[in-house]
Amino acid sequence: MFSIVINRCWAMYSYKQIDPSEYRVLHPRPAYLIVSRNGSGRLNVMAASWVSPVSEEPPLIIVAIGRGSLTREYILETKEFTINIVGEEHLNLTFKAGTVSGRSVDKWKMLGLEELPSKYISVPGIKGSYGFIECVLNKVVEAGECDLLFCEPKAIHVREDLYTRYGWDLKKAKILLHIGGRAFTIPGKLLLAEKK
Amino acid sequence: MFSIVINRCWAMYSYKQIDPSEYRVLHPRPAYLIVSRNGSGRLNVMAASWVSPVSEEPPLIIVAIGRGSLTREYILETKEFTINIVGEEHLNLTFKAGTVSGRSVDKWKMLGLEELPSKYISVPGIKGSYGFIECVLNKVVEAGECDLLFCEPKAIHVREDLYTRYGWDLKKAKILLHIGGRAFTIPGKLLLAEKK
Repeated sequence: MFSIVINRCWAMYSYKQIDPSEYRVLHPRPAYLIVSRNGSGRLNVMAASWVSPVSEEPPLIIVAIGRGSLTREYILETKEFTINIVGEEHLNLTFKAGTVSGRSVDKWKMLGLEELPSKYISVPGIKGSYGFIECVLNKVVEAGECDLLFCEPKAIHVREDLYTRYGWDLKKAKILLHIGGRAFTIPGKLLLAEKK
Repeated sequence: MFSIVINRCWAMYSYKQIDPSEYRVLHPRPAYLIVSRNGSGRLNVMAASWVSPVSEEPPLIIVAIGRGSLTREYILETKEFTINIVGEEHLNLTFKAGTVSGRSVDKWKMLGLEELPSKYISVPGIKGSYGFIECVLNKVVEAGECDLLFCEPKAIHVREDLYTRYGWDLKKAKILLHIGGRAFTIPGKLLLAEKK
């Protein structure tokens, strides 16, 4: 009965075809700040939302990074970076980090960032972020105009006031999700699926 | 001035370390329904949120799939699948698709799904989904307990009433985001970053 009712409604919708490169169909998705450091100790920061866990045991995360980016150069040099989880209050910071190149300006200084020390690697997190993951590069796989960086998370630090045993407390943690361009959103109401 | 004010607040937060396998730190993120078909024409469906665009030119998408899953078997056999974008109204459907194995039951029938025909591949989309991507398997890379499937999107179909030239119309498209377990959320308010 359930499926019959649903299907009667579904029959009304019409679909249109859009370009296969329209990646925004897979957005909104979390936006992160990636911090990297080169061999001379210079820090850089960029925004990225093409990031995903890909394995739990052992834990592995992938980050897709444009082949021409300074962050990619730094990570290939030192094999270390941090993924910083950010929220609504980091909206303008994240957009700026994602639209200015570290080749033309010292973004770390320009954005007034301060370091949160890492435990296992030499690259810091960003003070005030919701949390950050200490990542060590594991392998690199070519993927079109990007390189896919496989990384091993060595440690995860989260703000004590925002993270519970069930994950982020979304009443407090306004996790930033990127839609496209200047447009972002944050999680809205909580939905609980029926028990099996 | 901006950064000084921010940093003064940031200094107050304290952080705790959590296990490096705590992938939920990268959630909430979109939940999708992956449809696959084996050589005999049997359809299967599963839920996945470890999915990401990884290149725009050429377009490439990755999907992380457990090595023991039936969906992985089917995709390796026929090299085709669809990624279906779903919303709040697909909450229970998505949770069920993600918690029942296709080895023990015909999930397609159990869930009362109907086919939306694809244009280029033999695997259909799901009628009533917000949209779906026709995917052809490009390569497979091992990633811990999962295989990372690289796919070429051959066509994307979206519901005409939900998709605009700027992407999903989030006033209407309640894109389903997975938090963990039975908990999901949908995008809330729109945030616009300041112009540069």
